[in-house]
Amino acid sequence: MKRTLGTCYYPEHWSREIWEVDARRMAEAGLTWVRIGEFAWSRIEPSRGAYSFDWLDDAISVLGEAGLKVVLSTPTATPPRWMLDRHPEMLAVDVDGRARKFGSRRHYCFSHEGYKAECAQIVAKLAERYGRNPSVAAWQTDNEYGCHDTTLSYSDMARHAFRGWLRAQYPGQGNDGDIEALNKAWGNIFWSMEYNDFDQIDLPNLTVTEPNPSHVLDFRRFSSAQVVAFNKLQADIIRAYSDAPIAHNYMGRITDFDHFAIGDDLDIASWDSYPLGFLEDRIEAAPSYKRAYARQGDPDFQAFHHDLYRAVGKGRWWVMEQQPGPVNWAPYNPEPLPGMVRLWTWEAFAHGAEAVCYFRWRQAPMAQEQMHAGLLRPDSVAAPALAEAEQVYREIADAPEVTSYQSPVALIFDYEADWAWAIQPHGLGASYFDLVFDTYRALRALGLSVDILRQNADFTTYKVILAPGLMHMSDALKGALRASGATVVLGPRSGARDSSMRIPVPLPPAVPGLDVLVSRVESLRPDMQIPLKSGGTITRYHEVLEGDAEVIEETDDGQPAIVSGDCFIYVSGWLDAAAMKRVFGTVCERAGIDVVNMPDGLRRRQTGHEMFWFNYSTAPIDAFGTTFQAASVTREML
Amino acid sequence: MKRTLGTCYYPEHWSREIWEVDARRMAEAGLTWVRIGEFAWSRIEPSRGAYSFDWLDDAISVLGEAGLKVVLSTPTATPPRWMLDRHPEMLAVDVDGRARKFGSRRHYCFSHEGYKAECAQIVAKLAERYGRNPSVAAWQTDNEYGCHDTTLSYSDMARHAFRGWLRAQYPGQGNDGDIEALNKAWGNIFWSMEYNDFDQIDLPNLTVTEPNPSHVLDFRRFSSAQVVAFNKLQADIIRAYSDAPIAHNYMGRITDFDHFAIGDDLDIASWDSYPLGFLEDRIEAAPSYKRAYARQGDPDFQAFHHDLYRAVGKGRWWVMEQQPGPVNWAPYNPEPLPGMVRLWTWEAFAHGAEAVCYFRWRQAPMAQEQMHAGLLRPDSVAAPALAEAEQVYREIADAPEVTSYQSPVALIFDYEADWAWAIQPHGLGASYFDLVFDTYRALRALGLSVDILRQNADFTTYKVILAPGLMHMSDALKGALRASGATVVLGPRSGARDSSMRIPVPLPPAVPGLDVLVSRVESLRPDMQIPLKSGGTITRYHEVLEGDAEVIEETDDGQPAIVSGDCFIYVSGWLDAAAMKRVFGTVCERAGIDVVNMPDGLRRRQTGHEMFWFNYSTAPIDAFGTTFQAASVTREML
Amino acid sequence: MKRTLGTCYYPEHWSREIWEVDARRMAEAGLTWVRIGEFAWSRIEPSRGAYSFDWLDDAISVLGEAGLKVVLSTPTATPPRWMLDRHPEMLAVDVDGRARKFGSRRHYCFSHEGYKAECAQIVAKLAERYGRNPSVAAWQTDNEYGCHDTTLSYSDMARHAFRGWLRAQYPGQGNDGDIEALNKAWGNIFWSMEYNDFDQIDLPNLTVTEPNPSHVLDFRRFSSAQVVAFNKLQADIIRAYSDAPIAHNYMGRITDFDHFAIGDDLDIASWDSYPLGFLEDRIEAAPSYKRAYARQGDPDFQAFHHDLYRAVGKGRWWVMEQQPGPVNWAPYNPEPLPGMVRLWTWEAFAHGAEAVCYFRWRQAPMAQEQMHAGLLRPDSVAAPALAEAEQVYREIADAPEVTSYQSPVALIFDYEADWAWAIQPHGLGASYFDLVFDTYRALRALGLSVDILRQNADFTTYKVILAPGLMHMSDALKGALRASGATVVLGPRSGARDSSMRIPVPLPPAVPGLDVLVSRVESLRPDMQIPLKSGGTITRYHEVLEGDAEVIEETDDGQPAIVSGDCFIYVSGWLDAAAMKRVFGTVCERAGIDVVNMPDGLRRRQTGHEMFWFNYSTAPIDAFGTTFQAASVTREML
Ligand SMILES: [Zn+2]
Ligand SMILES: [Zn+2]
Ligand SMILES: [Zn+2]
Repeated sequence: MKRTLGTCYYPEHWSREIWEVDARRMAEAGLTWVRIGEFAWSRIEPSRGAYSFDWLDDAISVLGEAGLKVVLSTPTATPPRWMLDRHPEMLAVDVDGRARKFGSRRHYCFSHEGYKAECAQIVAKLAERYGRNPSVAAWQTDNEYGCHDTTLSYSDMARHAFRGWLRAQYPGQGNDGDIEALNKAWGNIFWSMEYNDFDQIDLPNLTVTEPNPSHVLDFRRFSSAQVVAFNKLQADIIRAYSDAPIAHNYMGRITDFDHFAIGDDLDIASWDSYPLGFLEDRIEAAPSYKRAYARQGDPDFQAFHHDLYRAVGKGRWWVMEQQPGPVNWAPYNPEPLPGMVRLWTWEAFAHGAEAVCYFRWRQAPMAQEQMHAGLLRPDSVAAPALAEAEQVYREIADAPEVTSYQSPVALIFDYEADWAWAIQPHGLGASYFDLVFDTYRALRALGLSVDILRQNADFTTYKVILAPGLMHMSDALKGALRASGATVVLGPRSGARDSSMRIPVPLPPAVPGLDVLVSRVESLRPDMQIPLKSGGTITRYHEVLEGDAEVIEETDDGQPAIVSGDCFIYVSGWLDAAAMKRVFGTVCERAGIDVVNMPDGLRRRQTGHEMFWFNYSTAPIDAFGTTFQAASVTREML
Repeated sequence: MKRTLGTCYYPEHWSREIWEVDARRMAEAGLTWVRIGEFAWSRIEPSRGAYSFDWLDDAISVLGEAGLKVVLSTPTATPPRWMLDRHPEMLAVDVDGRARKFGSRRHYCFSHEGYKAECAQIVAKLAERYGRNPSVAAWQTDNEYGCHDTTLSYSDMARHAFRGWLRAQYPGQGNDGDIEALNKAWGNIFWSMEYNDFDQIDLPNLTVTEPNPSHVLDFRRFSSAQVVAFNKLQADIIRAYSDAPIAHNYMGRITDFDHFAIGDDLDIASWDSYPLGFLEDRIEAAPSYKRAYARQGDPDFQAFHHDLYRAVGKGRWWVMEQQPGPVNWAPYNPEPLPGMVRLWTWEAFAHGAEAVCYFRWRQAPMAQEQMHAGLLRPDSVAAPALAEAEQVYREIADAPEVTSYQSPVALIFDYEADWAWAIQPHGLGASYFDLVFDTYRALRALGLSVDILRQNADFTTYKVILAPGLMHMSDALKGALRASGATVVLGPRSGARDSSMRIPVPLPPAVPGLDVLVSRVESLRPDMQIPLKSGGTITRYHEVLEGDAEVIEETDDGQPAIVSGDCFIYVSGWLDAAAMKRVFGTVCERAGIDVVNMPDGLRRRQTGHEMFWFNYSTAPIDAFGTTFQAASVTREML
Repeated sequence: MKRTLGTCYYPEHWSREIWEVDARRMAEAGLTWVRIGEFAWSRIEPSRGAYSFDWLDDAISVLGEAGLKVVLSTPTATPPRWMLDRHPEMLAVDVDGRARKFGSRRHYCFSHEGYKAECAQIVAKLAERYGRNPSVAAWQTDNEYGCHDTTLSYSDMARHAFRGWLRAQYPGQGNDGDIEALNKAWGNIFWSMEYNDFDQIDLPNLTVTEPNPSHVLDFRRFSSAQVVAFNKLQADIIRAYSDAPIAHNYMGRITDFDHFAIGDDLDIASWDSYPLGFLEDRIEAAPSYKRAYARQGDPDFQAFHHDLYRAVGKGRWWVMEQQPGPVNWAPYNPEPLPGMVRLWTWEAFAHGAEAVCYFRWRQAPMAQEQMHAGLLRPDSVAAPALAEAEQVYREIADAPEVTSYQSPVALIFDYEADWAWAIQPHGLGASYFDLVFDTYRALRALGLSVDILRQNADFTTYKVILAPGLMHMSDALKGALRASGATVVLGPRSGARDSSMRIPVPLPPAVPGLDVLVSRVESLRPDMQIPLKSGGTITRYHEVLEGDAEVIEETDDGQPAIVSGDCFIYVSGWLDAAAMKRVFGTVCERAGIDVVNMPDGLRRRQTGHEMFWFNYSTAPIDAFGTTFQAASVTREML
């Protein structure tokens, strides 16, 4: 498939006179896609029921006539101010009980039925009008669900909806729900937290000490389901009028809702990739590491999300927003090194992206994101990224097509597991995302290309599957992993909780074929480590194992650290980077997968016919018989 | 007295079938006591007025038939959810004005009269039913007063009650109170804060800048008095029906209410000792220190509380909850070293505990504390602590009885002084508790066994009394100390405030017989220190002295640092550990008390016939002609 | 002019018997001024409408008879408790939406019309009664506007007033305002934030993510204007009854309102100088630096404010409150070194102060500031500062008068620029105040005396004008600077925004005569620096320049760092201390201004006939052929 480029454009921000010039320049730069509309509600419906589509007709027409394809977004992330007059209770409420006021974006509660009805109406209007417009070649629902911590709302509406959701989960006569089933599932007897009726159940914020983890887990599930329902409402309406594919643009490291569930209702996954911003504000790393990559981004963070959203999109995915220069929102916002915009773009393609769209066409001179670079400066002069995008466009034209690749190595990512760790980290700051990402880093440092899988994926094509930290594992999952034919690496915390966030008996992991049981667990201070005999250490989280499984790694003091049985390997703690690389390298080699030792900053991704090499460091790297230039991509035919 | 062991048990958490097995195993392990009931209100009174005692009758019977003695707790720390329907305003309110919601525990305001009436009723029901039950050998009121910052509530109920309390403190005609007396006591003229009426007085939260310290001190006194009254209400009811002793289980380093005042209304003091959790979350120490003791706990923290609660219990005290393995609530929750559960138990006995109960019998697989170890794992297999408990049981049986001991050294601890420092630390983070605890550490490092005393204790049996940081000292206290016959070490901040938190004139300390006056005071940055000529430094807090008292220590630049007169010694600052050990060692030796130089990690406690040695370190220690094994207790007959 | 001394006194805090003694001791110490009354409302009007002036008549009479002059303050910073019964909504509301309660001071919202009417009435009563009293020689309005973060209030009253203010800024028919003009100025289309009516506009707190910077800037302007109006209301009333000059006492580093605008309505600027407290709590510096100056204060902070408030006072300014010993409110509160009170006093005179008043006469034994030292201890014994004040008094009498001085070097300070940086720092913690203060430090390290100027000052008497960080520059300002005849140093961020906080096109700085354009900007991690070829680095904030202006400094990699054209020099980033000193030193020398290299801790200030040298360090400094004693001032005739 020919890979394509695009950009994000806001015709409503600019005077009508420059639309044609903009469109022509986009086309000349080699762009295919133009995403529009996601913040334009106040111009589409300036006051309640008074629609204004002329300008949008015009904008789509201008873009279409320039040969561009439009991704049309629903504007539901920014309801206009008049909406608040109609629905004063539509605002989300934060964990401290404060309404999150109008004046920026995403100021709605997913549980407000009145607002959802308004969304259904505007989406229907748009879909009806543009569903068959030949220039509208794709759709986007809303914008960045979950951004600014907006999945969880503690509003009255959310409380009401949560009670209804719980009744459906714990059904009884009526259905008024079976409150005893809930009391039992949550273990509410523990502190006399038993309910007599679902209407007594509140949201789990502002409790005196920590709320019941089972209570919180159900609230997290509910909150995720509200996002899924909100999205499905829109997708169903669009589908009634249009055959164009529907996407949503996810974010980096937002895990508050189940992206796989959203993905099931959409055609394409996309995400908004801001390598420098993410390095500063959502990666846990030493200052020296952040400084080393301050102008390049983390060498694994983008790749991880590419692989994750490839799974969310069931193979079809885009980068909907690609950082083209400094952003406005991170603690520090440096410029990327020359070459990085090209590198990031090619890396997305190497991982299978169909399209990469740059955010945004022209830097806005006003409002919240005025410090966010675009392909053009506010004065319409080209910013540095434009030339890099044009270079990629020429390279796409000249080079062989990027083809897909089936990896022998898979890594499971599960949103519920992330919620469970967040609810009960046991050790300060212990995060499932970090554990999985550490695992991913280790695999990448071994030169591997990785498929990220959801729990209910097809496991049968892999030689090695890593599944760290899955706090709940259903019997079906355990069976499917065992039946996969792969070597499956579990632990720590695998199967540590039942589906209601209780400790199961028999004790975990309770995997058929693996005679091991986690007898006790402990969390460790950051300055405590448990060394392994063969090198590296256990950090943060440590389990004591019992059972007759074969011991394949021991701690320095002779306790079992990693055991194996049947197709399973169980890791009894959070390994440091050295141990992960050594242990997973050995596992892969035994499974017949070649690994290499990648230098720091150099990463690679295999496609059907090529190996792509990405040098994220600030200096050339000599390795594997080649010199990899700094901030550059190298293509190697296989 | 034969020392005894016990555990905390929740029959309501487990199916009826295993009660007998549990009871038999408890008895076989050598346990005497089983504490039950403190979180069971929702099972005793599942809905308002509908009592269900059958299961509790049954549980007590099962335990009693196994030869165990029951400590029956009142369940008032966890009012059920239906209570909130009856008393919607019963929730405590936090300092930010937010109601502290149902969903965990301790969600009540001590000033809510409706809730207190409900408590009186359930306590009466329990006392009436079980007051003469031969298996119910002791009572516990509520659970861990003050835990989760629950002493101070900023509710409407608390405000109303505070006004009434103030009227009683500043009585006038009626009694509508004497508002001018209050205005004068608080110095309200200072910023035109004068009141015309008690009904104008609010709680001292959310003020623009700091509230009046006199206002806060009275609020702290009121809040403490509310806890005392709440407890007394229960104790009086139980006493009407039962002759069994009544206890409450205090916590570590909770100082928000006056434990001595509660102790006056009870028969036994007990506390909940979690050495590893407390090390992580409520001891100020360097990371390297915390790492060194991460699996053992602080070598002095438990001992300090043992000695403190021995005073609170007027000689009778227990450990009601003893940590048996990792807990769930600290930032990091490692396992204890093998041997530490035994060490902690013996240390309690060495300090005079009558009983040590392990929390809890079996690890709960559900709800908030599912990561909290028990004597049994969730699958009923013995956890490591059980064997250590059994070992202690055998040792109790074989060894001589632990007898009590009168120390020549005493240390005064005063809850009001802690409030005064908290209200006005002068230097960031300066805490009375830390000052007293530093003093205690120094005495322990000198090998001393220490009695902790309240302000109105009998001082006449001591050779040395240390009374640091008593911001208010009554004339009676000054007189009693002078009359004691002991050498009395005062300062810093001794008598620095009158009873209304004002600076007295003449300036402090104004102790008869000691010609010294604190001319000026200053707080110091942590990186500033004032060296003493004889070694060590003054840190954090420093006073400039005037007067003709004998100078016994000088600063490097020749200013008086420690002076003496009559029986008093006055220390003009917060000494560092080296200075405290040197200075207090000299004081003790001059008073005829032998001191030694204890190695780091080794501590000892004298009893009537024995010296107990506790090695808190991870390696054996050779000292005093003996090798003390790591994580172990050594008994030496005297 | 003969410089004078004074103190702050609270007759209402002390018994009537000691007033005469106090007054006599003040006069004997050489004090001229006694400020009174600013917190006495509850004694002047103990209940609504019931005035009690007798005591104040008496106090003024006692002071006057001792030969002292009174500065009479309006008591509006501390409305009594009964005021709240009349105006329950008068409380300011914090950014989290919580009312800021009674119980300390400054608990009023500047937008509450009812409270303002009460203020007008009490001010009129005072002015009427004392306007012609010969002992009342000056007035003070309120006390420390803005202290305790009290400029910004998010109350209903503030919201209402803000809407009215906006209507006036964006006038339309009626005047119901022109909402489209506001929408355009703010760029509200950006996220569909457009308003249909001014009554839809809320205050910019509690938004989901950051509010629109244009919205915030207007709110900041409005909030400042409310303070100005509040002050003018009082000044106008006083002027109707009195010819005595009117002052307000500003604070250190409070920038939330436009002091220049307040200054326009007053006769004298004054400020409250707390060198040790400010060092600890409002200066960004390394701990080692703070430790080095812990007992002296920052060597430039006082001087900066002296020069700033000289401009605010249009030449007439005082220190209304001078720290005499440890304060109560900083994180750590050490004693000053002996000599520092004298040094601080002389430094104020050297910068042109007419009077220096010590806060306070006698340390208060009660309420919030009981740990704040005075000239007397609470027991009326002299504290160390009294002797230093007396020494200054004698020195004033003996030495030549301090005369004024016209500096050749000016530095522009602009409150709106500070708001703009605070709204959009781009890099974490980047502050306009710090940028200007760093510039000031560099000039002082070159031995220069500096005039601080407002935007609309007369620039024609200067050789060099520094104007860093002026995010908005009007065409008038640009023209006035160009016409000044001075060398004008601009950048970074000069003219980076239009008056509505939007990026202007053409891009900044758009200064006539200087062919340079800021093409792109970036913020840097603290551990990233961009070295300059000639030494020093760019830190925090960096701009990429385009244009044909002459390059006078380059980065190590050859990019233009500083350029010049016409009279302008443009600096493309935040220079570190070494670069600032080198670059500004060169600029000054080329403009014919001599510079020297001042040792750390030594600072100087030129007057008409003398050079004053201030040694802020703890050791003597040998330099310029002289030995400057530690913590001391040296006068040198020119
Ligand atoms: Zn509605
Ligand atoms: Zn009630
Ligand atoms: Zn009013």
